[in-house]
Amino acid sequence: MLAQAIEKYQQRVDNVLRNKLAELDDSAPELKAAMSHGALLGGKRIRPFMVYSIGEMLGADLALLDNAAAAIECIHAYSLIHDDLPAMDDDALRRGKPTVHIAFDEATAILAGDALQTLAFELICQPNDNISAQQQLAMVTALAKASGYSGMCGGQAIDLSSTDQRINLEQLTQLHNKKTGALISCAAELALIAANASQKEQQIIREFAANIGLAFQVQDDILDITSSTEELGKPQGSDEEANKSTFPRLLGLQGANECAEQLINDALSALANLTYNSQLIADFARYIIARRL
Amino acid sequence: MLAQAIEKYQQRVDNVLRNKLAELDDSAPELKAAMSHGALLGGKRIRPFMVYSIGEMLGADLALLDNAAAAIECIHAYSLIHDDLPAMDDDALRRGKPTVHIAFDEATAILAGDALQTLAFELICQPNDNISAQQQLAMVTALAKASGYSGMCGGQAIDLSSTDQRINLEQLTQLHNKKTGALISCAAELALIAANASQKEQQIIREFAANIGLAFQVQDDILDITSSTEELGKPQGSDEEANKSTFPRLLGLQGANECAEQLINDALSALANLTYNSQLIADFARYIIARRL
Repeated sequence: MLAQAIEKYQQRVDNVLRNKLAELDDSAPELKAAMSHGALLGGKRIRPFMVYSIGEMLGADLALLDNAAAAIECIHAYSLIHDDLPAMDDDALRRGKPTVHIAFDEATAILAGDALQTLAFELICQPNDNISAQQQLAMVTALAKASGYSGMCGGQAIDLSSTDQRINLEQLTQLHNKKTGALISCAAELALIAANASQKEQQIIREFAANIGLAFQVQDDILDITSSTEELGKPQGSDEEANKSTFPRLLGLQGANECAEQLINDALSALANLTYNSQLIADFARYIIARRL
Repeated sequence: MLAQAIEKYQQRVDNVLRNKLAELDDSAPELKAAMSHGALLGGKRIRPFMVYSIGEMLGADLALLDNAAAAIECIHAYSLIHDDLPAMDDDALRRGKPTVHIAFDEATAILAGDALQTLAFELICQPNDNISAQQQLAMVTALAKASGYSGMCGGQAIDLSSTDQRINLEQLTQLHNKKTGALISCAAELALIAANASQKEQQIIREFAANIGLAFQVQDDILDITSSTEELGKPQGSDEEANKSTFPRLLGLQGANECAEQLINDALSALANLTYNSQLIADFARYIIARRL
């Protein structure tokens, strides 16, 4: 059931993105192709899954969630394009395919990332009779806070400055709460806004999402040393090679596995207080640490 | 009177930007410093001037215009940071000071640009009792349309792909309408939204802004060949060196001057139909082609 839901939402958000990108005129064909390459490279679509699954659970219509799901994926896609640049992580491969600056060139990759960020905010604002201006504005605010200096961008800056440095567990946790956690929490937030969730529901889902976000990163660090390059779609051991602090480095492999399990248990405990059928998102939480890629 | 107004609005928007940047926490000090360097590098603040002067003329309170003025300058500043990168225009000097990737490093410059774009959208959404959610949402939409694929980013992509190519006047005009015109028109649009302007006022101001936007670029091209490096704050003749199509190249220097004058005359003619005192923005229009930097 989880696998089907993942596929269903994946196809749904891919359609929204594909249609939106197809709507762009052809005045800058290279840029359009680079944006599409970056946004439609495949991937698990973890963030759209969370927007859709949490939103639907709370009673929001899927059509109401489409632009939010596509917007958060645009932000994620732009961040990957820029992170892969030579001046940043210098990765040539992403999901088994050439990264945007390899398939195109660096200038086009920078612009494609920039334009995908803008597109995210444009998507959130698309006219929709079933969502209020207040809700849309709250979504723009949530997305901006999660992506900017206080969230993802700040996290990436801290990550860059921490390379070759010894940082402790608290610093590593703070780094990842910003770098990946903020956007994963934002996916939940967008669903809460679309569903007009109550204070209590907000509190529960925020706790759930915060734990999932960190568990996701711990598992990513584990996979970087336990998976093959083929499974990962990018070079295995690249964190180690880049001399980055990771959870397995600080906690050992077993310690990192235990940490991820504890985070997922905390996420599941939070759900116990919810009066909705949370089976799907609970299965998703377990999948976060069971996945091999 | 124009000089005083320019200085007043310049200081006003600089204060808004300085305060907003000072509010950011110190978790990523390099990134924060790079964002500040890029956003507070000085400059004419043409776009904030237009937000303030047009908004105030139409009866909007200046305090209502602060976040819009700061937001559009954040977009402009981010675009300069990314345009200056080695993979793009590769400029080491901007307004007589080192560009962000020179003062910091490339990775930090990419992130500073990214985070300044995000900050623009966050600024527009700041809670404000005197502006409706509909108005703020309309501002986000206007800013996104002007900055993304259909506007500034698309224009920069076309510009990059036109280097070393012969393009005609129509193509050059379209390029600049996107690359610089869209954001200048957006400045006027933000003022129209804040002031709840009538249809007729919108039409007039849009025509005014479109002409100003193109004249601004024509004058920039003229200054690139007639000003000294010291006046420009960047290397003189850099367009020519980069083998870029410019208005003086296509029209000759005299032809480019006549074109800029015609555009300003058209901008001033549009204002004749306005029932407000448009002296200040008319003076500003004349200044666009009289300026030496």
